[in-house]
Amino acid sequence: MNHFFTSIYFIFLSSFAISQSSDSLVLRKIYDHYLTNSKCYSNLEVLTSKIGARLSGSPQAEEAVQWAKKAMYAAGADTVILQPCMVPHWVRGQKEKCLITSTKLKSSNTLKCTALGSSVGTGIKGVKGEIIEVHSFADLDDLGEKIIKGKIIFYNVFFDQTKITTGHAYGETVKYRARGASYAAKYGAIGCVVRSMTSLADDEPHTGNMVYDTAISKRKIPAVALSYKAADLLHENLLKDLTLQMYLETHCQTLPDAPSYNVVGQINGTEKPNEFVIAGGHLDSWDLGQGAHDDGAGVVQCIEILAALKQLGIKPRHGIRAVAFMNEENGLAGGIAYAKFAAEKNEKHLAALEADAGGYAPRGFFVDTTKGLYNQVIKWKSLFHPYYIDRFQIDGGGADISGLEKMGVPCIGFEPDTQRYFDIHHTAADTFDKINKRELELSGAAIASLIYLLDRYY
Amino acid sequence: MNHFFTSIYFIFLSSFAISQSSDSLVLRKIYDHYLTNSKCYSNLEVLTSKIGARLSGSPQAEEAVQWAKKAMYAAGADTVILQPCMVPHWVRGQKEKCLITSTKLKSSNTLKCTALGSSVGTGIKGVKGEIIEVHSFADLDDLGEKIIKGKIIFYNVFFDQTKITTGHAYGETVKYRARGASYAAKYGAIGCVVRSMTSLADDEPHTGNMVYDTAISKRKIPAVALSYKAADLLHENLLKDLTLQMYLETHCQTLPDAPSYNVVGQINGTEKPNEFVIAGGHLDSWDLGQGAHDDGAGVVQCIEILAALKQLGIKPRHGIRAVAFMNEENGLAGGIAYAKFAAEKNEKHLAALEADAGGYAPRGFFVDTTKGLYNQVIKWKSLFHPYYIDRFQIDGGGADISGLEKMGVPCIGFEPDTQRYFDIHHTAADTFDKINKRELELSGAAIASLIYLLDRYY
Repeated sequence: MNHFFTSIYFIFLSSFAISQSSDSLVLRKIYDHYLTNSKCYSNLEVLTSKIGARLSGSPQAEEAVQWAKKAMYAAGADTVILQPCMVPHWVRGQKEKCLITSTKLKSSNTLKCTALGSSVGTGIKGVKGEIIEVHSFADLDDLGEKIIKGKIIFYNVFFDQTKITTGHAYGETVKYRARGASYAAKYGAIGCVVRSMTSLADDEPHTGNMVYDTAISKRKIPAVALSYKAADLLHENLLKDLTLQMYLETHCQTLPDAPSYNVVGQINGTEKPNEFVIAGGHLDSWDLGQGAHDDGAGVVQCIEILAALKQLGIKPRHGIRAVAFMNEENGLAGGIAYAKFAAEKNEKHLAALEADAGGYAPRGFFVDTTKGLYNQVIKWKSLFHPYYIDRFQIDGGGADISGLEKMGVPCIGFEPDTQRYFDIHHTAADTFDKINKRELELSGAAIASLIYLLDRYY
Repeated sequence: MNHFFTSIYFIFLSSFAISQSSDSLVLRKIYDHYLTNSKCYSNLEVLTSKIGARLSGSPQAEEAVQWAKKAMYAAGADTVILQPCMVPHWVRGQKEKCLITSTKLKSSNTLKCTALGSSVGTGIKGVKGEIIEVHSFADLDDLGEKIIKGKIIFYNVFFDQTKITTGHAYGETVKYRARGASYAAKYGAIGCVVRSMTSLADDEPHTGNMVYDTAISKRKIPAVALSYKAADLLHENLLKDLTLQMYLETHCQTLPDAPSYNVVGQINGTEKPNEFVIAGGHLDSWDLGQGAHDDGAGVVQCIEILAALKQLGIKPRHGIRAVAFMNEENGLAGGIAYAKFAAEKNEKHLAALEADAGGYAPRGFFVDTTKGLYNQVIKWKSLFHPYYIDRFQIDGGGADISGLEKMGVPCIGFEPDTQRYFDIHHTAADTFDKINKRELELSGAAIASLIYLLDRYY
């Protein structure tokens, strides 16, 4: 190496070191902001405890839209955009009933259950029939219409506890919630019950969306989830009496689509105002709890990015947006609308991040390889090491940004610790008291830090 | 490189790869055991909900000794050793009282408080006096005896929320709990109250040990901790009335030392039976809660190592011990006794691990550099990567194994996530319902995996 190149090399090295060191100071300030001065926790308290559950189409969802707009301006947004979208409007109606009775055992038990989102209701008459317990779609193929017709299918499929990431266990079982009813209807079943998608052996039923997949069956039968303990009880009773009768009564229905909005809070870019780095969560939630972890947490973490930038005097090169997407839970209308608006307005999106895995302690990021994003992000690993962000894995973003992903926008999914998420996911127990303030703030700071680095260098 | 060396090199590489691959299979089996077949959670339920709080010298601590012995045999221990030790026997007595009254404000408030472990009591007469709020020992030096004499000192020192690891915030403030009373007594104070060592703004007072440091003062004055909210209230009232009076009444006392035991469950070594790899937690707990995270979790995680080895048919080369240490909280008599027995019996300890930071999700290990331990452990990093164990940091072990550490035994501290630990640490809220089953099991599996590797290769 000659002297000229040596000098260039060291100049390069030292400017790299200086920029890393000044970036590490900025990250420290972002963390200090989130840990001592942020509104993440108090914002989430309002969203969850004052507004509460906010399923698409509900008055609470609209209240949440107005709240988000105000919260974004309060955080320091230069502008807040409401992006209209039409959302499905499913309502649960009266509390569900699920009874099992056995003449053989002379027993009668009430099972804790919840109708699955998008399901048709049974109405006041309910449905009644014998139950067939299955453990896979293949079981239904084996049994066939002769046996299944007129019965209620019970998908008794457990989470695989050996999966280290709980999302992997969820990924394996959620198909029974999503398409179990259509698959059962295909063989003439009159109802569908599924074991809740959880690893926690408690009595909270987990709702979540289902779809009537017309490619499988044109018949729509009612679908409910049983709590983990209720599914255990049903299984135990079926071992003793295969002719057990189940009575199901649900009053849910789908009303006409309703108008709603994504809420987009923006800090204007100083160099490239029509290029954007965005981070979002979804504003809607299921109707049972308060949508605290799913996904109030993601929303307040992302809104706080605006406050952190403003209060720290960071003027971003590109437009920075915090997006509160509407209708992630049962339709993705908001995510689709966001991508459509971006295309129409010819907005360039450098990168999009989604935070929708609960407000737990941070672990890392799932990063797209599109346009070299992963190779860029992994260079910042050492900046995140002091903050216990250790995992940079190649993977996609999230549901709300999947529209952008299809348009070629590099996407990131934020990864908090997953162990407790499916304990409360889509249940009445997803409430503000399950939030740990520091976990919420640390994850928010991790997201804001990555957005800062992307704006500056990507 | 000539052909001979190339071959040697590749033989080396491929044998390394084979051993890593067979080790990764063993780790997978250990994890499967912990996640599907272990007694961690049910053992902890018995220890916390049936036996409950178990401060050294209490009947519950002795019950816990007998329980641990049984649980270790049930797990498959070849032998269980009870190592006798004399432990301090401090008792809380009747519930504490802390009242503040202000003639100026015409107000009277009851503050939630708890006597600090090892403190003398005020007895039925209580102590009463004006309060001086301080924020450091230096504040006391500045104020001096003239101002402090006859008063009650209030250490109003907050956790530093910007610390990423909560233990660092604890480390900075715990000195006021430990030696605040002696430092106040040095200047003639009649009582000492401290803000609880926590970042959670709730109403649970946190106990914990204090010492009368005769190098600072020979006088023993009563010491209590106020809940976070009580400390806030006191501070606010002092802003309005500096002549506020506090009445403190505590009934704690120190009885004569009592006999107790470490419980040591052992699987015999097949090759080197007098050499040991050990992992332990402490069996005693504070008297307010159930000692679930501190440290029932560590105890059950380590006992399960014996079960995992037995059930997976792993015959260790060295003796493997799960140690339930006695008296970590207020004396370390068990840790000292263990080291003494090891020295007397000339037992060689290859490595010792302590699990005493709560039953939360695993993050990593703090590893000694003694005898090349860190350099060895870091080679296994990739084996742990699938299990979200990412942090291998150079540091020491834990309090119970500090005696061994002084004897030159390489030590390891297990590091779970720390964010929620000081929310419940040493309070009535450290109960079984705060335990997440999967977090407990995943951390147990991480510990067992490292013990397996140490036995095989270190």
